[in-house]
Amino acid sequence: MLVVMDKTATSEQIEKVVKVIESRGCTARPIPGGDRVSIGVLNNQGPVDAALFIGLAGVKDAVPITKPYKLVSRETKTEDTLIPVGETIIGNGHMTLIAGPCAIESEVQALAIAAHVKKAGAHLFRGGAFKPRTSPYSFQGLGEEGLRILARVRETTGLPVVTEVMDFQTFDLVEHYADVVQIGTRNMQNFSLLKRAGESYRPILLKRGMAATIEEWLMAAEYIMARGNHQVILCERGVRTFVHHSRNTLDLSAIPVVKKESHLPIVVDPSHAAGRRDQVLPLSRASVAANAHGLMVEVHHQPDQALSDGAQSLYPEQFATLCRQVKAIFKVCGGNESF
Amino acid sequence: MLVVMDKTATSEQIEKVVKVIESRGCTARPIPGGDRVSIGVLNNQGPVDAALFIGLAGVKDAVPITKPYKLVSRETKTEDTLIPVGETIIGNGHMTLIAGPCAIESEVQALAIAAHVKKAGAHLFRGGAFKPRTSPYSFQGLGEEGLRILARVRETTGLPVVTEVMDFQTFDLVEHYADVVQIGTRNMQNFSLLKRAGESYRPILLKRGMAATIEEWLMAAEYIMARGNHQVILCERGVRTFVHHSRNTLDLSAIPVVKKESHLPIVVDPSHAAGRRDQVLPLSRASVAANAHGLMVEVHHQPDQALSDGAQSLYPEQFATLCRQVKAIFKVCGGNESF
Amino acid sequence: MLVVMDKTATSEQIEKVVKVIESRGCTARPIPGGDRVSIGVLNNQGPVDAALFIGLAGVKDAVPITKPYKLVSRETKTEDTLIPVGETIIGNGHMTLIAGPCAIESEVQALAIAAHVKKAGAHLFRGGAFKPRTSPYSFQGLGEEGLRILARVRETTGLPVVTEVMDFQTFDLVEHYADVVQIGTRNMQNFSLLKRAGESYRPILLKRGMAATIEEWLMAAEYIMARGNHQVILCERGVRTFVHHSRNTLDLSAIPVVKKESHLPIVVDPSHAAGRRDQVLPLSRASVAANAHGLMVEVHHQPDQALSDGAQSLYPEQFATLCRQVKAIFKVCGGNESF
Amino acid sequence: MLVVMDKTATSEQIEKVVKVIESRGCTARPIPGGDRVSIGVLNNQGPVDAALFIGLAGVKDAVPITKPYKLVSRETKTEDTLIPVGETIIGNGHMTLIAGPCAIESEVQALAIAAHVKKAGAHLFRGGAFKPRTSPYSFQGLGEEGLRILARVRETTGLPVVTEVMDFQTFDLVEHYADVVQIGTRNMQNFSLLKRAGESYRPILLKRGMAATIEEWLMAAEYIMARGNHQVILCERGVRTFVHHSRNTLDLSAIPVVKKESHLPIVVDPSHAAGRRDQVLPLSRASVAANAHGLMVEVHHQPDQALSDGAQSLYPEQFATLCRQVKAIFKVCGGNESF
Repeated sequence: MLVVMDKTATSEQIEKVVKVIESRGCTARPIPGGDRVSIGVLNNQGPVDAALFIGLAGVKDAVPITKPYKLVSRETKTEDTLIPVGETIIGNGHMTLIAGPCAIESEVQALAIAAHVKKAGAHLFRGGAFKPRTSPYSFQGLGEEGLRILARVRETTGLPVVTEVMDFQTFDLVEHYADVVQIGTRNMQNFSLLKRAGESYRPILLKRGMAATIEEWLMAAEYIMARGNHQVILCERGVRTFVHHSRNTLDLSAIPVVKKESHLPIVVDPSHAAGRRDQVLPLSRASVAANAHGLMVEVHHQPDQALSDGAQSLYPEQFATLCRQVKAIFKVCGGNESF
Repeated sequence: MLVVMDKTATSEQIEKVVKVIESRGCTARPIPGGDRVSIGVLNNQGPVDAALFIGLAGVKDAVPITKPYKLVSRETKTEDTLIPVGETIIGNGHMTLIAGPCAIESEVQALAIAAHVKKAGAHLFRGGAFKPRTSPYSFQGLGEEGLRILARVRETTGLPVVTEVMDFQTFDLVEHYADVVQIGTRNMQNFSLLKRAGESYRPILLKRGMAATIEEWLMAAEYIMARGNHQVILCERGVRTFVHHSRNTLDLSAIPVVKKESHLPIVVDPSHAAGRRDQVLPLSRASVAANAHGLMVEVHHQPDQALSDGAQSLYPEQFATLCRQVKAIFKVCGGNESF
Repeated sequence: MLVVMDKTATSEQIEKVVKVIESRGCTARPIPGGDRVSIGVLNNQGPVDAALFIGLAGVKDAVPITKPYKLVSRETKTEDTLIPVGETIIGNGHMTLIAGPCAIESEVQALAIAAHVKKAGAHLFRGGAFKPRTSPYSFQGLGEEGLRILARVRETTGLPVVTEVMDFQTFDLVEHYADVVQIGTRNMQNFSLLKRAGESYRPILLKRGMAATIEEWLMAAEYIMARGNHQVILCERGVRTFVHHSRNTLDLSAIPVVKKESHLPIVVDPSHAAGRRDQVLPLSRASVAANAHGLMVEVHHQPDQALSDGAQSLYPEQFATLCRQVKAIFKVCGGNESF
Repeated sequence: MLVVMDKTATSEQIEKVVKVIESRGCTARPIPGGDRVSIGVLNNQGPVDAALFIGLAGVKDAVPITKPYKLVSRETKTEDTLIPVGETIIGNGHMTLIAGPCAIESEVQALAIAAHVKKAGAHLFRGGAFKPRTSPYSFQGLGEEGLRILARVRETTGLPVVTEVMDFQTFDLVEHYADVVQIGTRNMQNFSLLKRAGESYRPILLKRGMAATIEEWLMAAEYIMARGNHQVILCERGVRTFVHHSRNTLDLSAIPVVKKESHLPIVVDPSHAAGRRDQVLPLSRASVAANAHGLMVEVHHQPDQALSDGAQSLYPEQFATLCRQVKAIFKVCGGNESF
């Protein structure tokens, strides 16, 4: 943190700032500049809130210099985190394809789609049993019955399964059935849920919040890691902007930034970013070209009849094309090891 | 919903859309235009997803026409909802002032601030016992001890208290102590929490999500009302934009829009929108001038020593000025009855 | 500028940064911290680009500390700028009401509206002769004939007139007829136009760009002042966000921030922010309550027949209510002198 | 346009809307729904403003159905526009690489960079002679001398050149020297400049505005085409969002949307989107993977000494890697013919 004083700040005002810094157990280092003084805040344990200084007399601004995250930071752990799931490894050097329907609707549906995506090359199967829906009147998922169907998909196809957990109450249940537990966009800062995830024995796929900065997202991962679960997979899925020709705006710059700041793997969900089928294939290719460690894509064999998000689900043959193309791009990019 | 076809759409494609509409139990009404056909979707029970149509061949766009909310809608209930809390009424014709610290830090702190804000004219006392914090290493609130302090504030001052609930596990506890239960920005679409709030016997103060549209916000209120709790107070607190001179951008247009769309009361939290003290007073006046039904403001008697959000907390004398000014503006605006 | 080095930066990398700083004629001051070095950039003449450092090896971040504007800055000139226009003064201690139609459509229309707004209390008349329109097929304004009508409005009513200039070619003409020359949102960073405005003998009303930060906006004003024209009036008119219930989101925090950073007056255009009539009155009151130095409001006597922006134009009687209410609020706020 | 009435709208209110529609020369078609009436607006010539209806009594909303653009629309011209420049063709089936420094600084610099990018595979050379800069105190470009240097680059290397035009006054000059004339982000809605570009004999590269919707962008192209110049190349360069880890957020969904809506070619500028070198390569690959018709990339042989935007300029060897990788991706994607 650097506290920038007004040009006209008095020495009393500067001393006051120094005292506030020291009262927090930090070291204050005044830095006389050309026409104003700035004061560095050093040796802070944990984040120092800019807010502490911004309201004080004579203070022009307080500028955070270092990042508040620790365990997620590449400065703490330089080697990439690799997360084994079944026979697959998620992380640098690998490209993991996760596919399946938005929601599990029936065993017939799930098995049909799973057969398609496995054949095309998917490594994991996805499908929602508990669905967060904007409207209380929309289909909310099959619940535990959906989880049981996921287990049968795994038995039948050998594909590990990813599914979303919405609350503490059903966490044990989801954790029991899932190979990877997903925390959705709307719960990225549901801190109680993050703490529970931190005690889970499953890898957590943590979606970025719709309006989350990378710092907030990494701090959400820090909540999980701080409780002991170091298996976190980040998932970029688009952010909310003024743009309305896609449901969200996919933020592919997040990939190089996350890879620089953190050792955790990062995958992309192009389906929720796009919200419409005809953007999913180009955005999938783009994500792999930008060095994502994998994709999570919605596929449905009968999207017109899907109970949720049919419009963004690929047909099985489109997913097969996707797999072929992204594998070729992955090779071009040198297996995402470098950027 | 209006499904707009391509100019070149074939009659087979149009029939397919009609079939999809009818398969959902709705009525399809094709409307031939100058150079293309559109198809109205009528008699829908519950929301129809644009996504259903956007992926179909020959479809150019699907435009939602009506709103998905029911119980929150002014079309369902034309009279304003008034919510009595203690001796105060929240809603049209009234202006409610809610004030207190970001977090309850001690009994001494809470009672000192409560005495100040009561004297200045506050109707309710606010203070967090469970705090959602971006960092797992930041102060997380006093928990139940904080709730007990709130109860002592109420006994001592007679002010009803508002405090935030973060999860299902502590809902009973918070509900027991609080007069109004707050659901925070980050939990606006924590649907499990909303369902529990729908079964509460307390009024719920529902903050707008950082990137929520008004429609999503009202749908979150619909979740609460759909479970039987009709006492919902909406709270605008700023949205995330490219702007960085304030923590968030206060969206005052939300006030007339919410008042037109819904019968529920709406208050404003200028402190979290601003994030810095020197913007709180102008934004407070602006909110009342835009016809908010009330304000929720952070006040601290020693903001330099606050454990959270000190930079945006008003000094007690600033809050006294605020009260005087907004009461005068409330009168100028005719008591917010009209706009 | 503070250049923050990686924890692992070598002394060669640090020296390289120092050399780059010194090659720009600035002083480099390395500041050893707890676990990393930062390097202050001092004595810079003019802005230093963070970009210079961000690409260098061993550099983690480059954080701008001071602002790039000079002439517009309150650190350069502490007293408020007051701009006399006719018998009115625009600036601190005054509240200026500017009103009129979006576009001048005819002499009859302009005179009718001018009579209404003058009676209600407007100090200046606004009306577009050259109109920036999203579509090349929309009404583009009456051009010079519109300017002549504005001159007749001034003769008849005594109200000074504000009108927009769109390009260099017509600047002389607009400057000849107008009392205040407006530069619109879309031209806020049309630097050639700003330079011409800097040579004008008229006050310039500079609208904020739709996605401009306050820093960019003040730098646009700096362009005008750097050429010698110190009569700049800033006009907040809403920014583009994800929000779509209003045309733009009015950013009222900009008022206290601009007043702190600059000595220039700031007015608000609630009509373009709202885009719909029913939000204009609450946003107007809010703007004055937030200490704006004035308002620019669209008024039309027959908005259903307006050639542009009819939906956001107030009826004359609504404008009369607006004038009464904002004058009362102006008094409550102590005449915007303090905040 | 569909005008949606309130549930409680009276037949007088409906008739009034019908009258307003007909007074504009359009046909009104009332559509009785389940519980409310909507009114279609048919046979409109040119755009109809929603604003016309939104203010009328009994009107709930006015929803635009069709797009306002004509000449740019794929509904008007189904075949892709191909634009020959020198021996290169810009448009579907081709991938055009444009590279060079942000600003022309000297003949030595320009020729050195041109030699590098030509060798790596660039088809066109870019470089600014007139530079739009946020600060009036920053380097503004070499002006005509810069243009002359560009001509020498063309003579020496055979590469056609792209350079930005900032105003009407210098348009003739720029048009004389350039092979492709660029209109920058900040001038996307400088309508006077667009009109002049519409009379140019050169192809126009039109950058998307920082906060422009695709509709506004295509309407800016429509301004150019409406004056007779049909050679327009669209250039996506990122939009402004809350995200601050890149200068702008690259909106790759724009590529499939533009390709569906329009026949014009679309290229991507990853350098200005990123603002930092280490994001340029992944974003370049992503853009081609998303089916862009080309890239415009900043390259500098001595970026530490660049007079502008050095931080985002690639080193020549990075650009060579980029060329190799994007050519391979272009093949994987089937030569961008399909999506």
